[in-house]
Parts: sequence; structure tokens; C-alpha cells
Amino acid sequence: MVKIPDSHPRKKSLLSRQKIVEGNDRGLLAESAMIAHGRGEAFDYLLGERTTESAGTAIRESAARLRTAKNPVISVNGNTVLLAGKKALRLAAFLDCPIEVNLYYRTPERVSGLLSLLQEQRNLVLEESEPSGFEGDWQESVRNVTLLGDFPDFRIEGLEGPRSHCTEEGIGNADSILVPLEDGDRCEALVNLGKEVIVVDLNPLSRSAKMATVTIVDEVSRAFEGMLAELIANPNCVPTDWDNASVLRDSLVEITEFLSKS
Amino acid sequence: MVKIPDSHPRKKSLLSRQKIVEGNDRGLLAESAMIAHGRGEAFDYLLGERTTESAGTAIRESAARLRTAKNPVISVNGNTVLLAGKKALRLAAFLDCPIEVNLYYRTPERVSGLLSLLQEQRNLVLEESEPSGFEGDWQESVRNVTLLGDFPDFRIEGLEGPRSHCTEEGIGNADSILVPLEDGDRCEALVNLGKEVIVVDLNPLSRSAKMATVTIVDEVSRAFEGMLAELIANPNCVPTDWDNASVLRDSLVEITEFLSKS
Repeated sequence: MVKIPDSHPRKKSLLSRQKIVEGNDRGLLAESAMIAHGRGEAFDYLLGERTTESAGTAIRESAARLRTAKNPVISVNGNTVLLAGKKALRLAAFLDCPIEVNLYYRTPERVSGLLSLLQEQRNLVLEESEPSGFEGDWQESVRNVTLLGDFPDFRIEGLEGPRSHCTEEGIGNADSILVPLEDGDRCEALVNLGKEVIVVDLNPLSRSAKMATVTIVDEVSRAFEGMLAELIANPNCVPTDWDNASVLRDSLVEITEFLSKS
Repeated sequence: MVKIPDSHPRKKSLLSRQKIVEGNDRGLLAESAMIAHGRGEAFDYLLGERTTESAGTAIRESAARLRTAKNPVISVNGNTVLLAGKKALRLAAFLDCPIEVNLYYRTPERVSGLLSLLQEQRNLVLEESEPSGFEGDWQESVRNVTLLGDFPDFRIEGLEGPRSHCTEEGIGNADSILVPLEDGDRCEALVNLGKEVIVVDLNPLSRSAKMATVTIVDEVSRAFEGMLAELIANPNCVPTDWDNASVLRDSLVEITEFLSKS
């Protein structure tokens, strides 16, 4: 791994890139995952590599919706586990919800590889300090996060082939799904099942972004961190009437403002 | 390879992606090349996946500069060979100039792999029809394109390590270099050597884009095709006073217009 100096203005972005490259070397990613990461890099660049105001609003809304859901679940793919697996675990511990590894290009090998990585990440989270304001036994909550995905026993209606497989305990039963970096077809199928779908997608023009109930136009690890911060700061946060099209328009305006200053 | 239906609105983009994935499988790309392609995809999406008006201006200027240069050269990396190797060969045959494989993360294996691929592509070009308006023996001109890169005997001043290596016959002696998808440091070093540097880069905010003599903000195969078309349409085209900063501003305006219509 190349050492990136602390002074590098885009250090975080380069570290994320390294995580993706290393995950790919370990066989944890589908062949198009690196290209998808590159697309994300470009859009993040155009957002100024920061959580914009409109993304902050979507993050707060998402935290409230996940907190008040009956059966929330966090659905993760390879890029999400590599970029933000530990943060997904902290969020799941806070929300008391399962994490399901769910892959568009599903292979049993990659699902188990990613579940093993999540186990390693869980051990690292247990060594970290507990988030302030957490009521209950943090270590216990982290240990209790159910990791799902290797025994898919449910199918997402409206999809065909391996991409339709999931678990009943996780996505099957969920009323609210946090699903970062999702494909447009799957996002649509989940919405059609009547589920609340919270997407994290750096491209505000993507089909997923347009289909979702709430779209967070932000980098996935910043989005997870933001949701956890919101749950800590506003433990009783509640959903609002949400106009997702409006927040997507705001993110386009933010990109335009970035371009006009460049 | 997945068959993409002709009706797919983004067929060209998906075919390009497949070329990159296949080239990566063949070991022809550095580990970050797929991520770089993804960044390009995102910027191309924001340009509407077409040659914009400002890119067209830069393409015409570049064609004129290459045509009137004493020693032009086309410098190619892995992504360029995979995406537009045949078009690079047609352009080089028209300009009577060499093509040099020049890699930022240079390894002898990848240089020879890419040179072999260019040889294969040359055979395919020889089976295709000759461009209209070409004076001379087209087949002969295609066969005569010198392919350089496997015996680097020259160093680009101001750079260190393998990334500084090139050939004297190609980049070393060139007064004008067409260098698509280039790194910012190398672009700067070439400019500092007093060479005319023509860059093809989908990101108008990149360091390469800002450093170059002429920047074509366009997808590389469209850019090559456009230059060839210009050379055919205007065989006596000549360079103008060129304001590169202005054309870059225009491309940002074109992206902004795309976003405002989305």
C-alpha cells in the first residue's frame, strides 16, 4: 500500500480507493465494482467531497425513519463493506437491526468473504470507544448485530436470477431498508413491495436515486457517520413529510454551484 | 460477455466498460485503471455522452496542430488502447506519426501486452475501408505506423522512476504530443519541456486538463474519430490563437446546462 501524506488534500478519497483496490485483490468485488467506485469518486469530487446541506437533511430524515421502523435492515454490497463496514456495524448496533450482505452479482464465495470481513470489522469496533449517549450495553449490542446473507431463503418479487435472492429474516421482513450503492432495478423492486427504501448514491441522476423513498447524495461512510451522529444528537427524531425530488434538485444545484466556483 | 441490446440508450458506454473489464482480465491495466474509467464514465454522463460544442472546437484545433507539427506522436496508455486503439492507428496513419505505449505504472509485461494488442488492432484496421480523401497508399500507411515503447531510451525531465521513461524516437523528439487520459504530473513535465501537449480528458477540472496546451474534454474514441474527420474535411487546417482556459470554462457551462435540464 502506498503511504499517502496527511497533508494531501484528497487523502480520504485516496484511502477509500485503496480499500476498494485491496478488496478487489481479495476477490471480494464483482468485476464492475471498481468502475462503479470511480463513478462515485467523480460525483463526490463535484460535491466537494463533503456532506452537502441537502445531504445533511436526507441523513437526518433517514436516521428518523430507520429509528421508527418496525423491522429496519441495512443491506450491504462489497463496496459498502469495504468503505464503511465498521460504520454499518455501529449504526446497526445503535438501531438494533441486522446487516444483510446482498449482492447484485451474487456468488456464495463473495457473500461468505464479505461476511467474514464484517466479523473482522466487528472485532475492531469492539476495541473502539462506544458512541456517547448510547443507552444500554454497547459491546453487547455490537456483538448482537445479526449478519445475514449466506442462506438466502426469500426472493424479491419482480426480479429474476441470483439478484432476486435475499433472506426472509432481513430484507424479506423489513419495512425499511437502508441500501447504499444499489442498482436501479432492485431499488424499484423493493419500492414496489411497499418497503421504505433509503438509498445512498453519489449520483443524484441515477435511477436508484430517483426511485428511492429517501436518497442521501453522499459518500457512504460519511452518510453512515452522519446518521449515527443524528441518532445520538436527536434520540427522539421522527420522520417528516418528505419530498425526495426536491432534495435531489437541491443536490444538482449544489453541484452546479461547485462548478461555477471552479 | 453480456449481450447489450441495440436499443439500450447507453449501449456505447456499456460496450466501452466491457472493453475495460476484458482488458483488465487480460492483465493489460494497472490496478487503478478501472477506477479511472469509472470517473470518466461519470463525467461523460454529465456531458450527455456526446461531443459537445466546445470539445468540437478543441478537436479541430488539435487536428490542425498535429497536422502542422514537425514530429507529432500519439502517446497511449492501457485504457486508450482498449477503448480506441484502432482509431489511434487510423489517426497515426493519416498523420504519418508513431504511437508510443507510455505507462504511468510501467511494467515491461504490460507494455508488450499493449503493443501486441496494437498489432492485432492494426490487422483489423487493414481489413476496414480506407478513409475517404486520403492521398497515398492507405494500407501502406497503416502498416508503416511505428509502434514504440518497449525499449525506453529517454527520460522525461522533472519526473522520477518508471513513469519518467519513454523513447527518444517518440516522446523524446516530439514537438507535439497527443496524450489522452494522462496524469497531471506528467502532463506538466511535458509542457515544461516546451512541448505542445494535447490532452483528452473528460474531467475539465483535472490538473492535466488545466496544464495542457489544448484540452479535448471528450471521450477518447469520439475525440480520435473527430480529429480524423477534421483532417479529412479540412486537409489544410491550421492552428489558431488558442485560449485553453476559455474552452475549459465552456465545458463547465455545458455540464451545468446538462444538469439544469435533468
